[in-house]
Amino acid sequence: MSAEHPFLPELFAALPEGAVSSAAEDLKYYAVDQGPVLDLQLPLAVVWPVEVGQVQKVVRLAGQHGISVISRGAGTGVSGGAHATENSIVLNLERMNQILEIHPEDEVAIVEPGVINHQLNEAVRPYGLMYAPDPASYRYSTLGGNIATNAGGLRCAKYGVTRDSVLALDVVLADGSLIHTGHRTFKGVAGYDLTALFIGSEGTLGIVVGATVRLKYLPINSRTLAIFFQDFRTAAAGVLAVGKARIQPAIMELLDGASLVDIDQRMNSTLRARGGALLLIQTDGFGADAEADGIAAAVAPLGGTLYLEDPEEAHRLLELRRNSRGMDADLDTRVGEDIAVPRSKLVDYIAETELLAQRHRVNVRVVAHAGDGNLHPTFWIEEASDEGIERLNKALDESVELALTMGGTITGEHGVGQFKLRWLGQEIAPEVLALEHRLKRLFDPAELLNPGKAI
Amino acid sequence: MSAEHPFLPELFAALPEGAVSSAAEDLKYYAVDQGPVLDLQLPLAVVWPVEVGQVQKVVRLAGQHGISVISRGAGTGVSGGAHATENSIVLNLERMNQILEIHPEDEVAIVEPGVINHQLNEAVRPYGLMYAPDPASYRYSTLGGNIATNAGGLRCAKYGVTRDSVLALDVVLADGSLIHTGHRTFKGVAGYDLTALFIGSEGTLGIVVGATVRLKYLPINSRTLAIFFQDFRTAAAGVLAVGKARIQPAIMELLDGASLVDIDQRMNSTLRARGGALLLIQTDGFGADAEADGIAAAVAPLGGTLYLEDPEEAHRLLELRRNSRGMDADLDTRVGEDIAVPRSKLVDYIAETELLAQRHRVNVRVVAHAGDGNLHPTFWIEEASDEGIERLNKALDESVELALTMGGTITGEHGVGQFKLRWLGQEIAPEVLALEHRLKRLFDPAELLNPGKAI
Ligand SMILES: Cc1cc2nc3c(=O)[nH]c(=O)nc-3n(C[C@H](O)[C@H](O)[C@H](O)COP(=O)(O)OP(=O)(O)OC[C@H]3O[C@@H](n4cnc5c(N)ncnc54)[C@H](O)[C@@H]3O)c2cc1C
Ligand SMILES: Cc1cc2nc3c(=O)[nH]c(=O)nc-3n(C[C@H](O)[C@H](O)[C@H](O)COP(=O)(O)OP(=O)(O)OC[C@H]3O[C@@H](n4cnc5c(N)ncnc54)[C@H](O)[C@@H]3O)c2cc1C
Repeated sequence: MSAEHPFLPELFAALPEGAVSSAAEDLKYYAVDQGPVLDLQLPLAVVWPVEVGQVQKVVRLAGQHGISVISRGAGTGVSGGAHATENSIVLNLERMNQILEIHPEDEVAIVEPGVINHQLNEAVRPYGLMYAPDPASYRYSTLGGNIATNAGGLRCAKYGVTRDSVLALDVVLADGSLIHTGHRTFKGVAGYDLTALFIGSEGTLGIVVGATVRLKYLPINSRTLAIFFQDFRTAAAGVLAVGKARIQPAIMELLDGASLVDIDQRMNSTLRARGGALLLIQTDGFGADAEADGIAAAVAPLGGTLYLEDPEEAHRLLELRRNSRGMDADLDTRVGEDIAVPRSKLVDYIAETELLAQRHRVNVRVVAHAGDGNLHPTFWIEEASDEGIERLNKALDESVELALTMGGTITGEHGVGQFKLRWLGQEIAPEVLALEHRLKRLFDPAELLNPGKAI
Repeated sequence: MSAEHPFLPELFAALPEGAVSSAAEDLKYYAVDQGPVLDLQLPLAVVWPVEVGQVQKVVRLAGQHGISVISRGAGTGVSGGAHATENSIVLNLERMNQILEIHPEDEVAIVEPGVINHQLNEAVRPYGLMYAPDPASYRYSTLGGNIATNAGGLRCAKYGVTRDSVLALDVVLADGSLIHTGHRTFKGVAGYDLTALFIGSEGTLGIVVGATVRLKYLPINSRTLAIFFQDFRTAAAGVLAVGKARIQPAIMELLDGASLVDIDQRMNSTLRARGGALLLIQTDGFGADAEADGIAAAVAPLGGTLYLEDPEEAHRLLELRRNSRGMDADLDTRVGEDIAVPRSKLVDYIAETELLAQRHRVNVRVVAHAGDGNLHPTFWIEEASDEGIERLNKALDESVELALTMGGTITGEHGVGQFKLRWLGQEIAPEVLALEHRLKRLFDPAELLNPGKAI
């Protein structure tokens, strides 16, 4: 049926050979990202532009036909932000993957949206530079996707999130026009901060087709501490102890026992044998040694076992942490969360979450970007059943409400997408949400850019 | 005449004794900030609310009468952003000056808009915390004003600008309603980033009546280097040398010879005798010593004279730098600029600026938040004359255009206000400016909030 849509022949005619597909397997593959699927919809077509002009053409054509445009990077999103919707095409930016400029003295790079996070970091490393925001998906996810979700990552505890590293954007708007926002300089306050408005807007206000990013200095040194504790709550208390010592690590990740077991199973590691919870801390820069010593002293009273890891083992551990989620899409029976709480609430949140999982007889494991108070509990049940899925959903709802009660948020970094819309009204007041919808319509009157997402 | 405006009796009736004034001296004093005055307008009244409800009342009443509302903090702005306009009142937030909460474990504070930057820093210091953005006006300017301008400062080279430290806002909109944006957590991506949109919007989208800010750790140690060079261009080359060494100082300020002379005259110091230009660098944190050593080595080939300052002298020098502008308002005959350029262009920009000042026979002195490529050239003529003021304006125009040619911005931190509107169209494309005007009208359909400013 979709192949007969009158829009399709025009779309094929407008773009070069190989830039559009309506093959069943493509429609199926690109229908969803890694997030839970509530309402599977196949797109009418998948498009891979290689230049800005093609993006503009596609958006204009889609607009004429009332077809929705779902921007997509690598599809590693976990909130259903890139899920296809009814009467939509998927606009895949992954072939616009050129690093257009690296300027080592200005400490900036200009990239196309399909550049992979890791690719940029490899390219700037020879200059002693890094692109700081490093989602655990850094080997796969695109900068366009990182920008559209305002992605966080491991070293964001010290270096900030995506927004803090993006200076300027090129954006194709819903009418097909191209605008440039921001500045190449580190600072700049001329006009409203449209750059920040687009960052995190999940493809609902415009399509990011280019970005100027600020690079930071590769640290001269780093030290990695793996501190194993008997239980998760004590490990979380370690996070607070480091904060109390007023030492800012570059990375401060927390993994509970169930996460260690899961990693061990998938990655053939032996973490769980070393303790019931892991606090993984990296300090970096000229003060790395002194900071690591200070952190060791600060957590000592909590009685964990501290390993100072050599660089190779440190790298291995961090990669294990990054793989803690696995690359599997969420399922009916397993959903990963992304709440954040004020830091003082870490221990309480974890304690309550363990209890509520017990209460609803669901399994839970938790990893956390603990330095930022950003927790990823994953809830799952062993076997699908209506009753089990109901329990799972109750646990999800309660864990999110718990975060909100503690002054937290329903999403620290993954975005609202489609899946978290059900909680959005609990965090954002009706009048603010109404204002955001008016903003949306200002940018996209026909609501064709990634409809039903983010707000 | 203004005293007879029918709006005034209602305004007086709506607020407690002492909260409104239409006394001539108040109207005159609060008519302008520290920026150049192009079109002096007296407000109809000056209002000092002490609570959010009063702000709402005033905004609603003004809306009913079509009166503009000019928000004002301490009036230290230097772009005319707080200048009164025709048919306006000045809404002075300085009496809403309570720190409502300091949470040392969450590392956040909640403040009213009239809290002075310095006041917050003094209050959080006992907890080993600081509010990082520190405009040179930190002893006077309010957090509301800092937020409305997205203020930068000295230690922003390392710690980022105001936007990077603000988590949530309470804002009164043009219709008098109160909204809350953002989150108390360090990270959070639910909904659009309205917080960032309000930051730097110079009171044109809403009135900031509260803020939740993130606090950073007070550095355990700091080292201050005063490096005097023969000339300014060599000092600017020093900034690039530090960058090349990939060492991130907390503060990196640059002062030219004329600025040193000016400070010496006003502050009774003897800086100019030590050299023709000063590069003032502070490193901080656990790596402060090693970083300072690295910086000393990096700049050594440039042949300056390096002084490692003891903490008291370091403090004195930084205060002298902060006073480099003086607290005098800009005049017809003297205007301070605020451009930023990509860092590699620092030396070129300075060289060209010296030349253009000579060409137009105007004086120039320059200080710079050099770590951020943010320069404050001040141009002046000795005596007012139409011809002289014309030359001065030519020099201003060219210095701004020069920055734009080099990939820079017309304002790094002071804001567009009223004075820089004349250059805004050279930086921001017509279609983007049009979009920003549509945004403005979405928030403020009658255009009563600080009209004719910022965009
Ligand atoms: C193993 C794993 C680990 C992860 N770890 C992290 C983590 O540490 N931190 C974190 O923040 N996230 C993490 N994520 C989530 C995900 O990787 C991020 O959200 C990432 O930023 C998505 O990038 P992407 O290129 O895959 O975008 P996609 O998934 O393709 O899209 C994400 C959203 O952005 C929109 N979008 C994509 N490209 C554009 C564009 N060019 N213009 C406009 N809109 C666009 C899409 O419409 C969608 O709404 C992880 C995911 C996995 C699977
Ligand atoms: C000596 C000196 C040094 C300076 N150094 C720096 C520096 O290093 N970095 C820097 O960025 N700036 C600097 N400035 C400029 C100025 O101090 C900053 O712009 C500061 O943020 C203004 O704060 P304020 O409270 O004085 O605001 P005001 O001058 O009163 O107002 C500034 C703007 O914000 C708006 N505004 C004020 N309060 C609110 C509110 N509550 N809600 C909405 N809008 C509001 C006003 O309408 C106006 O547009 C300096 C100025 C001087 C005189």
